[in-house]
Amino acid sequence: MSNATTISAPAGVPFIEITREFDAPVEAVYRAHVEPDLIKQWLGPRGYEMTIDRYDVSSGGGYAYTHVNGDEAYRFRGVFHTARENELIIQTFEFEGFPDTVSIESMTFEALEGGRTRLTGRSVYPTQEARDGMVDSGMESGVNDGYERLDELLAG
Amino acid sequence: MSNATTISAPAGVPFIEITREFDAPVEAVYRAHVEPDLIKQWLGPRGYEMTIDRYDVSSGGGYAYTHVNGDEAYRFRGVFHTARENELIIQTFEFEGFPDTVSIESMTFEALEGGRTRLTGRSVYPTQEARDGMVDSGMESGVNDGYERLDELLAG
Repeated sequence: MSNATTISAPAGVPFIEITREFDAPVEAVYRAHVEPDLIKQWLGPRGYEMTIDRYDVSSGGGYAYTHVNGDEAYRFRGVFHTARENELIIQTFEFEGFPDTVSIESMTFEALEGGRTRLTGRSVYPTQEARDGMVDSGMESGVNDGYERLDELLAG
Repeated sequence: MSNATTISAPAGVPFIEITREFDAPVEAVYRAHVEPDLIKQWLGPRGYEMTIDRYDVSSGGGYAYTHVNGDEAYRFRGVFHTARENELIIQTFEFEGFPDTVSIESMTFEALEGGRTRLTGRSVYPTQEARDGMVDSGMESGVNDGYERLDELLAG
């Protein structure tokens, strides 16, 4: 059985919080978030193909990628404010379908006993409408898919 | 009489919105936000000295500066997600006194009739506590001071 993903989007505030544990060491989970060849094996919904133009996880670095699902292409980009190995990534996030609506995300990596890892994500949207729209877009199944695919990658 | 600065920080949401008009063209107001030699003449409270380590307003660029007030030094840094000349800047913001508490700010520059400009700023904090702390820190007088200094620079 896979680990549960907890997604919290409280009413009336523009936050989404995600907590997920992994049966793998923090170094492996972090690496899967920074190496493009690994990222494209798990990030996003099953069945989507991910092409990466740039993925430079460093303070001042940035990323740009496209998720392709049949005829549909979804492009994303952002910059990294903080990248602290095996600890913390803080980045901006923009879906080019909603230009100039830019959120900020932090991902905290925490080593647990038994070589396991807890990942805590927090996304903050520029408006309540943008947060609510993201929740309504079906992001939950995309996140669940992605972390199950990450489980498979980490086990492989 | 100087133009009024409107600062809005609604209860229970992590936003600060600032609106300010300037008696100067949008090109001049934008330039004062991107050229380090101009920025350090107005950004921050009166009586503070600003030293700039880096100020590169471009998508993927970043900034780092210090405000010095007598024996006290306050260091800030961030990265730019978007920089669209005379239109829009979106950047992250971190005060190193509260490490890893990173907000995201957008500044919209709008040309008005008569060669005037409206600047609309929106800051989004990662927690309600961080937003409330920023409001309680006396940021309002710093913002008012800064924009009055900017008026003087634009008139000079």
